[in-house]
Amino acid sequence: MSPFTGSAPRTEEWRHLRLALDSGIATVTLARPDRLNALTFGAYADLRDLLPELARGGGVRALVLGGEGRGFCSGGDVDEIIGATLAMDTRRLLDFNRMTGQVVRALRECPFPVIAAVHGVAAGAGAVLALAADFRVADPTARFAFLFTKVGLSGGDMGAAYLLPRVVGLGHATRLLMLGDPVRADEAERLGLISLLAAEGEAATAARGLARRLAAGPALAQAQTKALLTAELDMPLAAAVELDAATQALLMNSDDYAEFHAAFTQKRPPAWQGR
Amino acid sequence: MSPFTGSAPRTEEWRHLRLALDSGIATVTLARPDRLNALTFGAYADLRDLLPELARGGGVRALVLGGEGRGFCSGGDVDEIIGATLAMDTRRLLDFNRMTGQVVRALRECPFPVIAAVHGVAAGAGAVLALAADFRVADPTARFAFLFTKVGLSGGDMGAAYLLPRVVGLGHATRLLMLGDPVRADEAERLGLISLLAAEGEAATAARGLARRLAAGPALAQAQTKALLTAELDMPLAAAVELDAATQALLMNSDDYAEFHAAFTQKRPPAWQGR
Amino acid sequence: MSPFTGSAPRTEEWRHLRLALDSGIATVTLARPDRLNALTFGAYADLRDLLPELARGGGVRALVLGGEGRGFCSGGDVDEIIGATLAMDTRRLLDFNRMTGQVVRALRECPFPVIAAVHGVAAGAGAVLALAADFRVADPTARFAFLFTKVGLSGGDMGAAYLLPRVVGLGHATRLLMLGDPVRADEAERLGLISLLAAEGEAATAARGLARRLAAGPALAQAQTKALLTAELDMPLAAAVELDAATQALLMNSDDYAEFHAAFTQKRPPAWQGR
Repeated sequence: MSPFTGSAPRTEEWRHLRLALDSGIATVTLARPDRLNALTFGAYADLRDLLPELARGGGVRALVLGGEGRGFCSGGDVDEIIGATLAMDTRRLLDFNRMTGQVVRALRECPFPVIAAVHGVAAGAGAVLALAADFRVADPTARFAFLFTKVGLSGGDMGAAYLLPRVVGLGHATRLLMLGDPVRADEAERLGLISLLAAEGEAATAARGLARRLAAGPALAQAQTKALLTAELDMPLAAAVELDAATQALLMNSDDYAEFHAAFTQKRPPAWQGR
Repeated sequence: MSPFTGSAPRTEEWRHLRLALDSGIATVTLARPDRLNALTFGAYADLRDLLPELARGGGVRALVLGGEGRGFCSGGDVDEIIGATLAMDTRRLLDFNRMTGQVVRALRECPFPVIAAVHGVAAGAGAVLALAADFRVADPTARFAFLFTKVGLSGGDMGAAYLLPRVVGLGHATRLLMLGDPVRADEAERLGLISLLAAEGEAATAARGLARRLAAGPALAQAQTKALLTAELDMPLAAAVELDAATQALLMNSDDYAEFHAAFTQKRPPAWQGR
Repeated sequence: MSPFTGSAPRTEEWRHLRLALDSGIATVTLARPDRLNALTFGAYADLRDLLPELARGGGVRALVLGGEGRGFCSGGDVDEIIGATLAMDTRRLLDFNRMTGQVVRALRECPFPVIAAVHGVAAGAGAVLALAADFRVADPTARFAFLFTKVGLSGGDMGAAYLLPRVVGLGHATRLLMLGDPVRADEAERLGLISLLAAEGEAATAARGLARRLAAGPALAQAQTKALLTAELDMPLAAAVELDAATQALLMNSDDYAEFHAAFTQKRPPAWQGR
C-alpha cells in the first residue's frame, strides 16, 4: 500500500462494472451481456475513476479488461448515451466527451499493463478501449469496428485518430476510421491490431495467462517500459534517449536488477519483488 | 456554396489537368498520356490552386485523382522540370520546391477525402501524390517508385520522409526512399501502402465506387475524421484527446448526428446532409 | 578529407572492435566470438567515438556492422557490465547509460547509411544496435530479443521505446519490449524489422553487396535522405515539407543532379561524385 494516500476514501462498490482482485491481477468485466456490454455514463465514469484508484493502491501488477456474454463491448449505448446527448447543452457535451477521453488516458498512463481480452464485437468506444490497452488478446470471433462515422461523429473519438495510426499505420487507420467497417480477427492480426491470437473461446483464458506472467515479472521494470512507450511517442529522439538513460540509471539501483544478477550467478530463476 | 467568398474569381479553365464535377465527386485526371502523365510546372501549380478552390466552393465531398493511359504518373518531367531547374537560381529553386510541397499540404488539409486511383507507374512526385491521398485504390499493375535518389535528389521530397514512415514504418520507408526501387502491388499491399486492391483494370472504377460511398456519407463527420488524423500525427496524446472531445461535442450538435438517432429509432437508413 | 578538422588527432587503433575501410565502405565487426560479442564498456565507448570520427573524415559512404562467430551481439556482458553497474554510484550509472544512448544517436545521425548484418542472436543492446541501423540485412538464423525486462530493466533502453514503435507499430513494440521474448527471422520480416532477408549464412555477403551499391550511389543525396528520415520523425508536416523544399533546392545545385541529367540525355549511367 502506498504511503502517499490522503483523505479520499476507497470506493466500496463499483456499480457499473465488475471488479475482481486476485494475486496482483485486477479483472474488470463489462457486464451488461443483454446489451452486448454497451457503455453507460456510469460505466465510463467508473472506468475513469477505477484506474487511478487501483494505481494509488499499489497492489495491481496487471489488469485484464473483458466483456461478459457474446462480445467484448458494443460501444456507447444508443438509447442511454446517443439519445441523452441529443438533449445536452454544449457544456455538458464537452464534459461527457472529456470523460471518455480521460478513460483512454487512464488506460495509457496507469502503472501496470492492461490486457484487453476480446471476443465477438469490439465496436465504437469498445474498439477504442481495446486499442488503448497494452495488449489485445483476441480469439477468431473478434471483430473491431471504429464505427463513429456511421453515427455521424468523427472517427477521432477518445484518442483513436492518435492511437490507431501509431498501431497500424496511417493508411489502414484512415480506412478504418473514415469508413467504420468491421475488421475481422485475421485482418486485425495482419495489421498488428492483435497482440496475441487465442483459440476460439480462449481469449479470457489466454489473457489471464499473460496477466499471471506479467504479475510474476519485474513489475517496476514493466511499469517503466509502459511509461516510456507512452511518453516517447510524443518526444524527439534526443529527449527519448536521455529519458531512457535516466530511467535505466534509476532501475540499476533497484532490488530487482540486483536480484537478476544474483540469480544469474547462482544459476536460479530470479524472484522479482517489483521494486 | 460557402458565404465566405471574397473577391477572388473562380478559375474558368484548368489547363494542366482535367477536372470533372458530378454529384459531389471531383475527378481530377492527369492527362498527358504520351508522357506517362509526367508533371509540368503548370500541373503542379494547378494542383496547388485547385484543391483550396474546391474546398472554398463547398460542394465537393470526395475527390478521385487518377492518370490517363498506361499509368498514374511518372513524376516530374525530365525535360521540362529537371532540365529547367538546372538553369534556375536559388530563389527560384526554393519557389519551385515549396510549390510541390504545397500540393501535398493541400491534399492532406482539404476537407474531403482524396482517393488516388493507381494503375501502372506511380513514380517520383507521382508516388508522393498517391502517398498524400487518404486512400490508395490500386490494381495489380500498380508500381510505386520513390526514385528521387536515382536522379541525385533527396528521398525526402514533398513530405515523403514525413509521410512514408507513418504509413509503412521506418524500416521499409528507409529502404524505399534510400534505394528508390519500385514496389509492386503485392508488396505495396503487404506494407500498407495500398488501401484497397482492385482487379486489373478496375482501379478507376473501384475508386469511383468508394467516392460515391463517401459522397453519400456524413460529409462533415468524414471531413473532421480526416482533419484529426492529419493533426494528431503532430500532437501529444493529451492534446489529441482534448481535440477529440471538442470535436465530438461539436458534432453532437450536428444535424447528421440527430438524423442517425432518428433513423435508428425508426429502423431506416439515415439520410446524411453533411452538416 | 574535410577541411573542417581541428587539433583532435585520429584514433590510431580501435581496441574494442575491428574496423576495416575499403572503397568508401567501413566494416565494423564486434569480435568477441567466445562471448557472443557481448558488449563491454570499451566497445560502447569505441562505437560512440568511431562514428563521429568516420563522419568527420568524410570518406565513408556506407557502414556495415556485423558480429564474428555464431551471432551478431548478445548485448551488454553480464559479468563485465551488469556486475560492474551494481557497484556504481548514481552519477556513474547516468554516465554509462548516456554513453549507450550516444551510440544510438551516432548511428541515427552519421551522414552515411548503416547496415546491420544480423545472423544468430541480436539481444538486448545488440538488438537496439540493429534497430538503430538504417538497414537490417538478416539471415534465417537471426533472432532479435529486446530482453531488458528479463534483467529487471526498462524495455526503453538506448531509444528502443522511441524507435521500435516507429518501425513495427505500437502494438508489436509493446509486446516485444514488455515481454522480452525472442523474435525469429520470419516474424521479424513480417513485422518490418528486417529490411532484406538473405539466405542462411549470407547476411554479411548481402550486407556488403548493399553497401557497395550505396557506396557507388549519390552519397550526398543518400545522406540527406537519411537526415530527413531521422529529423522528420520529430517534426510536424508543415515543417517537414519546408525542410524538404530547402533540401531539394540545395541538391538541385549539386554536381550529382546535373550529372543525372547529362547522363540521361546521353543515354549512359550517371557517374556519381557524392557532391
